[in-house]
Amino acid sequence: MDRLANIRVVLVRPLYGGNVGSVCRAMMNMGLHDLVIAEPRPEFNTFDAVKWSYRAREIWDRHRTFDSLAAAVGDCRLVAGTSVREGLYRQHSRTPRAWAPQLLAAAGEGPVALVFGPEDNGLSNEDIAYCTHLIRIPSTEAYSSLNLSHAVMVCAYELFVAAEAYTPPAEASPPATAELRERMFGMWREALLEIGFMEPPKADHMMLALRRIWARGELTEIDTRIMMGIARQMQWYAQTHGAR
Amino acid sequence: MDRLANIRVVLVRPLYGGNVGSVCRAMMNMGLHDLVIAEPRPEFNTFDAVKWSYRAREIWDRHRTFDSLAAAVGDCRLVAGTSVREGLYRQHSRTPRAWAPQLLAAAGEGPVALVFGPEDNGLSNEDIAYCTHLIRIPSTEAYSSLNLSHAVMVCAYELFVAAEAYTPPAEASPPATAELRERMFGMWREALLEIGFMEPPKADHMMLALRRIWARGELTEIDTRIMMGIARQMQWYAQTHGAR
Repeated sequence: MDRLANIRVVLVRPLYGGNVGSVCRAMMNMGLHDLVIAEPRPEFNTFDAVKWSYRAREIWDRHRTFDSLAAAVGDCRLVAGTSVREGLYRQHSRTPRAWAPQLLAAAGEGPVALVFGPEDNGLSNEDIAYCTHLIRIPSTEAYSSLNLSHAVMVCAYELFVAAEAYTPPAEASPPATAELRERMFGMWREALLEIGFMEPPKADHMMLALRRIWARGELTEIDTRIMMGIARQMQWYAQTHGAR
Repeated sequence: MDRLANIRVVLVRPLYGGNVGSVCRAMMNMGLHDLVIAEPRPEFNTFDAVKWSYRAREIWDRHRTFDSLAAAVGDCRLVAGTSVREGLYRQHSRTPRAWAPQLLAAAGEGPVALVFGPEDNGLSNEDIAYCTHLIRIPSTEAYSSLNLSHAVMVCAYELFVAAEAYTPPAEASPPATAELRERMFGMWREALLEIGFMEPPKADHMMLALRRIWARGELTEIDTRIMMGIARQMQWYAQTHGAR
């Protein structure tokens, strides 16, 4: 069951085609596909929407329009509206991260709406009345008005992350074992003595410094073998070119 | 010490003014102020940048340019590059959320760079070489290429949230106490009997149903007093208009 497939992005009376195109990109980046425009404006620039949707054109091509917000969310069990205003009846808003688990759980059962208002004024009180939940995206107090596609991106991103739909890239090489690291340090000790970087009485001390430097981040097996190769080459170079 | 003030957003060879203007908005929404463009292109459309920066114009007005990425990040102790490619030497990338604590800790000591590549190709291998850390923004495999300003928004948002710079709106009214709730249930019981919604033998059962409904979400003091007002009015209406 793909819970993200049940998340519907509802744009109410959007003004700019470019923003709606960018919303398509954000949705496709984050695994959302169901775009709805409620109360479309006659002057809406669909050419801009197509242009800005870039390689997320399929989201735009499949979008639906409804004459009212009520119709757009009619089949949704949970309707989450976004708002930055904090007037009466908007105080129970929570961040997208706080709501994400509940939104996803509901999306496991049926359609869930994320509702975004027009660029200039946001959702009206009448729109808000249709919302069972209110989302407030964190922002500075000095400038709390997000671009429409940015607001969609933050909400979609939080749902995508909460859905654990993303697998981070795996480091191809496993961490080096202690045994391999010790072999590397042994080779460096010999090589550094060979090229005269340190004298035997100071060698232990210097090797502790190197151990400290190379322990700050975990070395992989490949990293360790690269460092061993350098030590080996230093020794070879010293033995073939050295003037001891 | 405002750690966010030490976060520098570095855009390398950006193509579109509109995107850079949108980046200004995202930065200002999330409390970042230091915008740098590295290796600016001669054909870059500054008019678009100003137009799209909207009410974040001050970020654009204060931005700096450098001829090279090396110069742009020269004073930074930590340089975090963003990349969606996963080639050799890019496998150690982590998500913005995973890196955020470390980036903020470093920003407590001095400037830290977030580096974003051009819209078409992202950061080159040469650019990546300057980065001490790599950021991979979670996305679907099907479409991993984020709009430039969306990428900046997600990283800035994660840092803003991690910096705990945002205080969620507080519910103005405290939760109702059990004592207040019991008074409300008592008034409803009387009112529902008065208007003939239930007969005395069924009253206990029906009141349990109402308790269950109203316990699903926490009622505030104001909520409870509103419900008490309705019960009072029902009783008054029944007593003054009733035909018992």
